[in-house]
Amino acid sequence: MTLPASQSDLVDLACRLANAAWHAIAPHFRAGIDAENKAGGAAYDPVTIADRAGEEAIRAILAIERPNDGIDGEEFGKLEGSSGWTWLLDPIDGTRAFLAGLPVWTTLIALADPDGNPVIGLIDQPVLGERYIGAPGEAWLETSKGRTPLRVSSCNDLRQAIIATTDPFIMNPAEQGAWTHIRHTARICRYGLDAYAYGRLAAGSIDLVCETGLQPHDVAALIPVVRGAGGIARDWRGREAKQGPQIVCAASEAVFEQAFLSLRRSAGD
Amino acid sequence: MTLPASQSDLVDLACRLANAAWHAIAPHFRAGIDAENKAGGAAYDPVTIADRAGEEAIRAILAIERPNDGIDGEEFGKLEGSSGWTWLLDPIDGTRAFLAGLPVWTTLIALADPDGNPVIGLIDQPVLGERYIGAPGEAWLETSKGRTPLRVSSCNDLRQAIIATTDPFIMNPAEQGAWTHIRHTARICRYGLDAYAYGRLAAGSIDLVCETGLQPHDVAALIPVVRGAGGIARDWRGREAKQGPQIVCAASEAVFEQAFLSLRRSAGD
Repeated sequence: MTLPASQSDLVDLACRLANAAWHAIAPHFRAGIDAENKAGGAAYDPVTIADRAGEEAIRAILAIERPNDGIDGEEFGKLEGSSGWTWLLDPIDGTRAFLAGLPVWTTLIALADPDGNPVIGLIDQPVLGERYIGAPGEAWLETSKGRTPLRVSSCNDLRQAIIATTDPFIMNPAEQGAWTHIRHTARICRYGLDAYAYGRLAAGSIDLVCETGLQPHDVAALIPVVRGAGGIARDWRGREAKQGPQIVCAASEAVFEQAFLSLRRSAGD
Repeated sequence: MTLPASQSDLVDLACRLANAAWHAIAPHFRAGIDAENKAGGAAYDPVTIADRAGEEAIRAILAIERPNDGIDGEEFGKLEGSSGWTWLLDPIDGTRAFLAGLPVWTTLIALADPDGNPVIGLIDQPVLGERYIGAPGEAWLETSKGRTPLRVSSCNDLRQAIIATTDPFIMNPAEQGAWTHIRHTARICRYGLDAYAYGRLAAGSIDLVCETGLQPHDVAALIPVVRGAGGIARDWRGREAKQGPQIVCAASEAVFEQAFLSLRRSAGD
């Protein structure tokens, strides 16, 4: 599939979209969330306001620069395009982390081809100044110090692996069984990272991530980053990952196979 | 209890200790941890090397500047002093987060009085550039942008609370029962934060932290930070927190009381 513009121009655009999102989101991060504000109803909801402001900022740029592309965003839904290409957006992936003032939420931006395969992906953590970028044939981490190639770890044994999932308690009982099996095999387990975990998998410090209940805009950005770093991105049936809801990413085929023994019994359609 | 030097001099010293620790630790963070390196035995163990290098750097400064104070450090144990005052050190609290390349481990430095009460505490996260500092009557967050007073949230209802514990699976069954009860009442739950959670509690974005199995050097630094920000630090029997192993910190007496209903049934000695 030929990209609709040069790879570097599309990556540059994705970076500018992430910058615009952070500009809109920043005033709301750690912005005096207190008990009254959490009460719901008409109260101030910083995460919803920030989520919407971030997505509006991104959509405003796309409307000018890629007016023929479709958009599928968490906050404002689908906009049909005529080019066949679609931008998938999640301005704040990890709203619970955002509310808790933790710097492990991310902004997710992906471009998917007319078959729905994400080809460019960006996982941005602006508080840390870390931007994990994936494109055909490459993946890198961009920080204020420059660009570092991303490469998954050489881990090939689940018993030595560092693994992650966002929340073991949102899984259904069968999924939780699979996860418990994997957790007892692995060396170290981390929670609550949302998409940031896939960035660290691409960077080689996490070896396996399994999740359920994901939406296309949660998944699309991760895939080019993980694959560009040499990692594996599948669903729980072992098929190439595309849109969720169940996803498993691994540093190696060996780690994937060991996790897959458990996951396949809990795989959905 | 009169401090053994001016409060600002002691805080300044604690900050220089944290700087020295980070200088020693930084080369080992995200430093090419791969499967072979994780295999144990004689293999490169970045977290142990970094932990030891950090504590050595701190001890070298204390030997010159506070030669009569005792030291209780995670890596090199206890050094008796003659002043009655003791420095409690954990160069890397959150070794699992460190190994996973996550910026939520911290360096903990505390000064305890001759009765074992920590009076100055520092929770340092150098990757984020966040230093949570507590001293008698005050607590603040220091970043490159300056100093911000720390103040716990006004949350007074566990049902609205954001809560955290490091690992629900290291609790004993009774403790896990208490935690499960609390988790189902609270609004949002986060894991894997180790001492960083107490920094965010002091900053008002987390409302309750409950943990078990803590050592004195894990606990001492948290207490002045939480109390200096107006929060509560107790053990699971409801007594003022001192040394662990069970600790509960809350933004308000009301949130503490609601959690205490569950915790007290699982309290150790």
